[in-house]
Amino acid sequence: MITSSNNGNIKNIVALQKKGKVRKEQDAFVVEGIKMVSEIPAGNLMQLYVAESYLTRQEQKKELEKIADFHGVVYEVVADRVFQEMADTQTPQGILAVVRQQHYRFEDLFSDKRAVHLMVLEGIQDPGNLGTILRAGEGAGVTGVILSKGTVDLYNPKVIRATMGSIYRVPFFYTDRFLEVLGEVRERTTLYAAHLLGECCYDQADYRGDTAFLIGNEANGLSEEAAGYAKCLIRIPMMGKVESLNAAVAASVLMYEAARQRRKK
Amino acid sequence: MITSSNNGNIKNIVALQKKGKVRKEQDAFVVEGIKMVSEIPAGNLMQLYVAESYLTRQEQKKELEKIADFHGVVYEVVADRVFQEMADTQTPQGILAVVRQQHYRFEDLFSDKRAVHLMVLEGIQDPGNLGTILRAGEGAGVTGVILSKGTVDLYNPKVIRATMGSIYRVPFFYTDRFLEVLGEVRERTTLYAAHLLGECCYDQADYRGDTAFLIGNEANGLSEEAAGYAKCLIRIPMMGKVESLNAAVAASVLMYEAARQRRKK
Repeated sequence: MITSSNNGNIKNIVALQKKGKVRKEQDAFVVEGIKMVSEIPAGNLMQLYVAESYLTRQEQKKELEKIADFHGVVYEVVADRVFQEMADTQTPQGILAVVRQQHYRFEDLFSDKRAVHLMVLEGIQDPGNLGTILRAGEGAGVTGVILSKGTVDLYNPKVIRATMGSIYRVPFFYTDRFLEVLGEVRERTTLYAAHLLGECCYDQADYRGDTAFLIGNEANGLSEEAAGYAKCLIRIPMMGKVESLNAAVAASVLMYEAARQRRKK
Repeated sequence: MITSSNNGNIKNIVALQKKGKVRKEQDAFVVEGIKMVSEIPAGNLMQLYVAESYLTRQEQKKELEKIADFHGVVYEVVADRVFQEMADTQTPQGILAVVRQQHYRFEDLFSDKRAVHLMVLEGIQDPGNLGTILRAGEGAGVTGVILSKGTVDLYNPKVIRATMGSIYRVPFFYTDRFLEVLGEVRERTTLYAAHLLGECCYDQADYRGDTAFLIGNEANGLSEEAAGYAKCLIRIPMMGKVESLNAAVAASVLMYEAARQRRKK
């Protein structure tokens, strides 16, 4: 049992939780809780840790052993006090894993049999918003997510938590050539930009064909350059004195409108 | 200028930020940032504070004086270091106000000229979710929000921030007789419950008449008792392996579907 937070593995996990640079170097990230651990794709679980007290419940221990078995790893037991330090959450669930990062090529975002449905995010900053967009996106049938370099790190622990597991399943692609990629997306889909000055109400457009939605930063919206690539600026009507919607809400309203139209196809 | 965090007013603001009980006793809450301060309804601003450095910008000082004038209050200047302690945010904007709480009667939720559109929330726990529901709700034309006693305090600083001002404008009603109130809502509107086992897809129902949506707790969903009051359990279809949507996302998809139908009326 690991009883000291000076243990090299423990120190490394703390670094993985806190630093995007360390995650990148090691091509790894940390997930917490039984839901996130049990959904890790085959071949991607690198290390598995449980708090000492986690083992006192027989059914938890059994499930843990099944997971370790499936991935062919040996789990490490950690003193509760030390586990608390490894965890990013204030009341940790007592189970945590180091997971291999997944990498997709741009082409992977177009490989689904369904009509293309992309979310293109420019500079989303709030980890909860990004994670929520992935979660709702999987639910709405999004086929891939493109992220500008300035978007928050998808492997940030707060993002991962908010995805509720969708991080394992929604293909994504970071790019530092955002405008170039937008040009490519524009060629291959109908690209709509969510915009406060949109000329067309979001439910007036037809999203049944290959479609991409461009969503901007929480505080500043879309850059003019990016918006310029859209075929059409769309607007979500707002009553009262509301000036804008939360980015994850706006994205979800659009994604679910596309899903609604596609069901009726 | 206030230069010590031992100042009685400063201590009181810290207490108002942290404790729902203190907010209730004083019938007050704290808002931060120029957007939230400038939208305070007439008669509700009780105290106004600015950080010393806030005054160095002439246009900020002018706007501040206009607000103080409008509300007939005198603003207090606070040393930056002390302001940092009063603020709930890590990088405060340098302006903050104590605001009188608003109270609505149950009847106020039905007094709008528009068709009734209520959100009924049972035990929503995440402050960001509650604030986001108010913000998107105002945008979608919600006429009122009902909250079970177990729902997070609407005057929690994180809720207020997430509302982006909608807290001043959307009528709400907390109740410790939740089921009784549900009975009343059921009499006066068509009550739909968002439910994972819903028999009817959310876009198949007609929300153009007086409508209420019942939304449950993030982790546990709706209680059976509450769900039993609904005329119909509705479900938002989810693809992939998604088990549920974020509560604010689910609420927003429903609210915007109702808004969409009402525009076409």
